[in-house]
Amino acid sequence: MLTRIEAQQRVVRLQARLAESGIQAVLLLMPVDIFYFTGTRQNSALWVPAEGEPVLLVRKSLVRAKAEGLIDDIRPFPSSKELSALLGREGDKVGMTFDAVPVAQHAWYSKVLPGRTFTDVTMTVRELRSVKSPAEIDMLRHSAEKLCSIFREVPTFLKAGMREVDLAAEVESRLRRIGHEGYVRMRAFNQELFGGMAVSGGAASYGFFDGAVTGRGLSSAAPQGASFDVIRENEPVLVDFVGVFNGYIVDMTRMFVVGTLDAELQHAFKVSLEIQEAVRRAMVPGAICEEIYKQAAAMAEAAGLGGNFMGMPGEQSRFVGHGVGLELDELPVLAQGFVMPLQAGQVVAVEPKFVLPGKGAIGIENTFVVTENGSERLTELADDVVAL
Amino acid sequence: MLTRIEAQQRVVRLQARLAESGIQAVLLLMPVDIFYFTGTRQNSALWVPAEGEPVLLVRKSLVRAKAEGLIDDIRPFPSSKELSALLGREGDKVGMTFDAVPVAQHAWYSKVLPGRTFTDVTMTVRELRSVKSPAEIDMLRHSAEKLCSIFREVPTFLKAGMREVDLAAEVESRLRRIGHEGYVRMRAFNQELFGGMAVSGGAASYGFFDGAVTGRGLSSAAPQGASFDVIRENEPVLVDFVGVFNGYIVDMTRMFVVGTLDAELQHAFKVSLEIQEAVRRAMVPGAICEEIYKQAAAMAEAAGLGGNFMGMPGEQSRFVGHGVGLELDELPVLAQGFVMPLQAGQVVAVEPKFVLPGKGAIGIENTFVVTENGSERLTELADDVVAL
Repeated sequence: MLTRIEAQQRVVRLQARLAESGIQAVLLLMPVDIFYFTGTRQNSALWVPAEGEPVLLVRKSLVRAKAEGLIDDIRPFPSSKELSALLGREGDKVGMTFDAVPVAQHAWYSKVLPGRTFTDVTMTVRELRSVKSPAEIDMLRHSAEKLCSIFREVPTFLKAGMREVDLAAEVESRLRRIGHEGYVRMRAFNQELFGGMAVSGGAASYGFFDGAVTGRGLSSAAPQGASFDVIRENEPVLVDFVGVFNGYIVDMTRMFVVGTLDAELQHAFKVSLEIQEAVRRAMVPGAICEEIYKQAAAMAEAAGLGGNFMGMPGEQSRFVGHGVGLELDELPVLAQGFVMPLQAGQVVAVEPKFVLPGKGAIGIENTFVVTENGSERLTELADDVVAL
Repeated sequence: MLTRIEAQQRVVRLQARLAESGIQAVLLLMPVDIFYFTGTRQNSALWVPAEGEPVLLVRKSLVRAKAEGLIDDIRPFPSSKELSALLGREGDKVGMTFDAVPVAQHAWYSKVLPGRTFTDVTMTVRELRSVKSPAEIDMLRHSAEKLCSIFREVPTFLKAGMREVDLAAEVESRLRRIGHEGYVRMRAFNQELFGGMAVSGGAASYGFFDGAVTGRGLSSAAPQGASFDVIRENEPVLVDFVGVFNGYIVDMTRMFVVGTLDAELQHAFKVSLEIQEAVRRAMVPGAICEEIYKQAAAMAEAAGLGGNFMGMPGEQSRFVGHGVGLELDELPVLAQGFVMPLQAGQVVAVEPKFVLPGKGAIGIENTFVVTENGSERLTELADDVVAL
């Protein structure tokens, strides 16, 4: 778990960034950001001045925030008037994460903190959070071990004739019993995910979810993940689940089949392993995210699968890996347009996948940590297709 | 499911509100709002002019949006330049739901749609959505039947000595297998929920969740819902779960005990039933939400339980019921400060509960629809404490 010393180090690193940017303070409102800096996820607002002590203002629960929080100054959310006296002064430039804070919150704070100019610090906060400490990597390793333990059990309950949703329910409840927290945090405004997905065969995989495979889901209201479709013999069964333990997320995918996969699917799977290996080797500190994606896409193209890489033909996603941590969609992203260099300590779920219309989705996913000596895999379980 | 005619009626009702308010159009960005007006939840933006046809601009998946969507004009998300030509003109006042749309989205649209003034239409959209059509009430009734069917099974698997999380996992996986969609949508910026909660005994129930009972959860990262604590004999076991089917949410709570409850807990339960009955009778079109809450709070006070009503003493919530529908926290709210009148067609989860420190949480919850002839209960299952 987070220690008081590490919480202080996180605050100090944020303060250094503020000083560099000429920002007097940040006002953090996203619960997950507040948890990262304080160790408590209550309904609250966190003020971090560029110099001096942070203060956590708690709406609910103050009792729990004080019991869990790792900063000294934790107090009840004050009146609007007291807030203005407490949080900086007129003329201050104050950071806020504009990617996630709603307009109404921004407007309210602009009114009660007159004379402050709010500025976007989304990338600063997300980039700081993307580099994991050794303690965080231990937490992620723990999540990976738990998640792998359930993936190992899949062959004991996967059967032809069961519905995708039954397979998903079985994975979900086994994860839950070993401590999966259930709620998968995503940062992007219009994304949402329930646990993961179990998707079989060739049903169309069109959907809003920003991944290679979306699944049909149970209705147009929740058009993502497992459906009521029945799993049949000789179909690729893609099991892609997220493990959330102590807040820390890892993501992995394995392929199963009752029977055998045809040559085209086997070829695509082999290419996904080759791409995974190339990405793994390429993930060193300083490597440019976009270039890793381009290399992966070029390998798919060279294998004759360019039109199937990372999605249904015509609706492909343009990434091959995404950061994970307290959220499923953290930085870095191995994607077109991300020209930032990788840093040691960043943790990436690498997921080269293909969708073959009429046949199904196939691929691999593992979570890796970038180290000074190359990338290290956290999800330690054989990659092979499991044939039953 | 939503029909094309009903989708059109919803758009027309929204347009009437826009015309009354002198607003030229709304730009809806929240997926759940878009689903309500179009029948499809993809990554998209919905433009509804005060006069004329709505247009749905789709980032992903266009194929699925076209297959499911119930409006005529569904097209790919255009370039910024085309967007400005398509969506109104300079001088227009354009509505947006400021409660949920992030600052960055608002800023981007303000840039690409120059000369438009954005204005908040949160309450307009939420109020329209709060009044359910007969078809929606059928959907909610279906969700209620499904949810009740699993509550009926609880006595078959609840045992003393099992952990709260095992009880939760059992409820969750049974719900899932009958079509529960898993993801519980909440609108409030800083709230999140996984499925519901199974909470037993006297462990402290302090937490961020804006309800009477929060549960300890599995860690400080997910401090809500079931914990690893063991369920013991003669403790109140509060089972509060949400059913989400076809997007439509109902909410209910029942009490269980292995053994018997002491006199104080039995008294509190009796009072919760009396309050539920008083609220049920009070819920008629035109009744003021706040007054219903005040009546409930006064009954708790008169029963000597004012300090235990709707939360831990000192951290009590100030409501007794909340709207449900496509989100768990819809309008109306039977709460202090909500002076709006109830309308026929609104659907409310009524949940008088008490927290007795050291003993546990106890109470009842059912989902009701407000009709011209009073309120009608959707969650048809006996209220009694189930003693095993």
